[in-house]
Amino acid sequence: MAERKYDKISAIARRRGFFWPSSELYGGLAGFYDYGPIGALLKQNIEKVWKKIFIAQEGMLLLDTPNVMADSVFQASGHLEHFADPLVTCTDCNTNFRADKLVEEKLKIKTEAMGVDELNGAIIANGVACPKCKGKLGEVYKFNLMFGTEVGPGEEKRIAYLRPETAQGAFVSFERLWEVARKKLPFGAALVGRSYRNEISPRQGMIRLREFSQAEAEVFFNPSDKKHPCFKEVEKEELNLLTIEEQKKGKSEKGEKFTAKEAVHKKIIKSELQAYYLTLAKQFFNRIGFPDSSMRCRQQLSEERAHYSIDTWDIEIHSEDFGWIEVAAIADRADYDLKRHSETAKKDLSVTIDGKKFLPHVMEASFGIDRPFYLLLEHSLKAEGKRTLFKFKKKVAPFEAAVFPLVDKDKLPEKALDIYNMLLENNVMAQYDNSGNIGKMYARADEIGIPICVTIDHQTLKDDTVTVRYRDTTKQKRVHVKKNYEILHEIWEKD
Amino acid sequence: MAERKYDKISAIARRRGFFWPSSELYGGLAGFYDYGPIGALLKQNIEKVWKKIFIAQEGMLLLDTPNVMADSVFQASGHLEHFADPLVTCTDCNTNFRADKLVEEKLKIKTEAMGVDELNGAIIANGVACPKCKGKLGEVYKFNLMFGTEVGPGEEKRIAYLRPETAQGAFVSFERLWEVARKKLPFGAALVGRSYRNEISPRQGMIRLREFSQAEAEVFFNPSDKKHPCFKEVEKEELNLLTIEEQKKGKSEKGEKFTAKEAVHKKIIKSELQAYYLTLAKQFFNRIGFPDSSMRCRQQLSEERAHYSIDTWDIEIHSEDFGWIEVAAIADRADYDLKRHSETAKKDLSVTIDGKKFLPHVMEASFGIDRPFYLLLEHSLKAEGKRTLFKFKKKVAPFEAAVFPLVDKDKLPEKALDIYNMLLENNVMAQYDNSGNIGKMYARADEIGIPICVTIDHQTLKDDTVTVRYRDTTKQKRVHVKKNYEILHEIWEKD
Ligand SMILES: [Zn+2]
Ligand SMILES: [Zn+2]
Repeated sequence: MAERKYDKISAIARRRGFFWPSSELYGGLAGFYDYGPIGALLKQNIEKVWKKIFIAQEGMLLLDTPNVMADSVFQASGHLEHFADPLVTCTDCNTNFRADKLVEEKLKIKTEAMGVDELNGAIIANGVACPKCKGKLGEVYKFNLMFGTEVGPGEEKRIAYLRPETAQGAFVSFERLWEVARKKLPFGAALVGRSYRNEISPRQGMIRLREFSQAEAEVFFNPSDKKHPCFKEVEKEELNLLTIEEQKKGKSEKGEKFTAKEAVHKKIIKSELQAYYLTLAKQFFNRIGFPDSSMRCRQQLSEERAHYSIDTWDIEIHSEDFGWIEVAAIADRADYDLKRHSETAKKDLSVTIDGKKFLPHVMEASFGIDRPFYLLLEHSLKAEGKRTLFKFKKKVAPFEAAVFPLVDKDKLPEKALDIYNMLLENNVMAQYDNSGNIGKMYARADEIGIPICVTIDHQTLKDDTVTVRYRDTTKQKRVHVKKNYEILHEIWEKD
Repeated sequence: MAERKYDKISAIARRRGFFWPSSELYGGLAGFYDYGPIGALLKQNIEKVWKKIFIAQEGMLLLDTPNVMADSVFQASGHLEHFADPLVTCTDCNTNFRADKLVEEKLKIKTEAMGVDELNGAIIANGVACPKCKGKLGEVYKFNLMFGTEVGPGEEKRIAYLRPETAQGAFVSFERLWEVARKKLPFGAALVGRSYRNEISPRQGMIRLREFSQAEAEVFFNPSDKKHPCFKEVEKEELNLLTIEEQKKGKSEKGEKFTAKEAVHKKIIKSELQAYYLTLAKQFFNRIGFPDSSMRCRQQLSEERAHYSIDTWDIEIHSEDFGWIEVAAIADRADYDLKRHSETAKKDLSVTIDGKKFLPHVMEASFGIDRPFYLLLEHSLKAEGKRTLFKFKKKVAPFEAAVFPLVDKDKLPEKALDIYNMLLENNVMAQYDNSGNIGKMYARADEIGIPICVTIDHQTLKDDTVTVRYRDTTKQKRVHVKKNYEILHEIWEKD
């Protein structure tokens, strides 16, 4: 029952090419998914919107760094020590379980704050058995979630790991970035790429992946100045805020509405800097298609927080099947990372500004890409009469327009291809379809969320006008192709 | 001596943020490089041009699939068996060497066709010793170049590998792609992403990476029709072709000039399909900035060819320091991949067209991204008088324009920021600089290859005109900002 919408989306996703399990031909590999031809375009557009905000608009420094990094990096970052989940294995059937999730499910208690010993104790005291075979569970132990590998042959061999977050690529290059940023604070570094997390038995499809895509912005700042020069531009934006206190009181799950300015003024969010990036994150989700009403900002409980953070606000989007899902986290990492790397590498990463020497602090705005991708499918999928459609915003739709000849004869396909090529030359990402029946072509375009269909008919041959049909309303309009680029204006018009 | 240009470029690259060794803070990890803020933009633009050709123009299906894949995939693909280099280790100092390279260097003989036994024999017969300590070398053995890892804990553990090529992501999903392509041949699948190769002692910087970026197009076709419908559009393009026969005769290293049409007609290239993609590849390198004169197309010798290919043509670009460097390969993989996956997965991947059942063949156009990136730096770097500049084409330059206020006062910075924001709104990737001295700002823009500088001065406040200065000529021109978007036209004008 609970998986109904996910199943429906998965079915369309496989058939139309949004996503499917990776290595499916060999029975799949749990926690790994492929983006198919339509999904890859949609995902690429989500990343483009992110880059437009963080690179073009905010002027952050884009980095592109390897997925494989030396073990010393993760010794310094604390991931070798802390990036682990409690694991328990059935002594009879050998099945693995995340001990905290199992105890939470069986005993209906909160387990975020429980260590290995407490989980062990709870299992023994309550006689929790294997949910699969009722067998006896073994000892709970910490299972590190990094994927290890070895670089180089023989004695040269070095242990390395697939990065658990893209962020470390910015921290280990801090000295170089400091030069490129001309020794001024604040500045941001931005990374978009894959990260890895060897989850214990992932079972939630696209929501819990072992290889996932991230977009992370790491802002280095002077801890004596936690303001942001452009805060004025976002201060009137409204946020649904759910604080730690409210969560403990069991208050309204959606949180309370505040403007960014109020949130800072009332000290609900501790710094202007954190409020600024939380608002920017919210705007990013707005731009790709999530209204304010689908989101909340939740402050992480201290027991949930990653080892590097002193305060984290998540953006969560509601899913019909999975409840509230974390899609971004604005974490105040303070001087944790540069301090640890300074110590481990035995190299002082302090900077000196106005005669004052200090370690820059880091405000991180970290986004998952796969979850918003999936949630966008969930939120955009509509059934209207016999139609199934994805109401994607124009900015993220896999194709901006579909081009059809009304019939496959009378030189209409040739004319349609001319117009298709004209669109391509104007950087419109268009799809050409020529499989006959116009109704079917509309339905197919709707099902992958193409906002506009352009149909070429016999009239087009005479006067260069085409029929434009809108996905959301199914309304049609006659538009000129060449005069004033009317057709381009239809495609480019904002939604 | 031989490394001179590389050293010069590396120095600029580190200082200005093109690239630098990864995990440098911890002594680096050989074969891994970071793209810094300027390099990441340049690299992204190279990938954009590739996608524009292969996705938008050619209409191929974009895929985005995991870096980690199940071991069965590589058992089927032949990489577990064949993707290996001969390794020899010094019994005294434990240093590892690529046995073929070592024998080639010491004995001045060609080693491509030599197996492990022959290399062993050559080492013993000629008393080849360790180049480092003169110690005795051990036995030559095959070292597999894939990075292994383990997925999942305990008994659930599955062996997986970091993909050695992106291509397998298309092959294992052939059945789904076949549906998405509506069961018609030919169709192409395109992948852009990281691949991995655990090289033995890589020593050529950006030219030989252990983690590298690829863009691969896999075209599935009917083997009874090796024509391409758009061949006419490229048939007049000229290619510098160096065949196997000519290489054996020791002929001109640049090859002989033929049009694509002649090459097919004279059977120098065996199929129209292969000639089409070779020409498309050449055009891609033209578009990012390599003239025909910098490239040659070399047919791989049979002993060089990957295990899956029946005929491969490389595109090679000449490097001052490294000689001819392979940057793309058009390989006729025939039915190798689908056949192997059919056998291994015990699933018939044949298709039926017009009553005929067969396995589609694959023509692959595989591109490295890191090598063209580096070679573009080498080819674009110019020293003119006191100026150091990168003459990048506008399409790939990290920034399209730089915007400066002439002086940091009199409201010029405010005006400059207005104009900068107007450019951003029009999707121009611009850089704002306000560090005082105009000469220095020009020099800095030149050194990262920004084609156009826009200077705001006191006159701008009065009449909205700015000075536009061109990187390549240093010529200046007065241009209106608002009237007819004059400034945008300057930036968008083709080079
Ligand atoms: Zn059990
Ligand atoms: Zn030695």
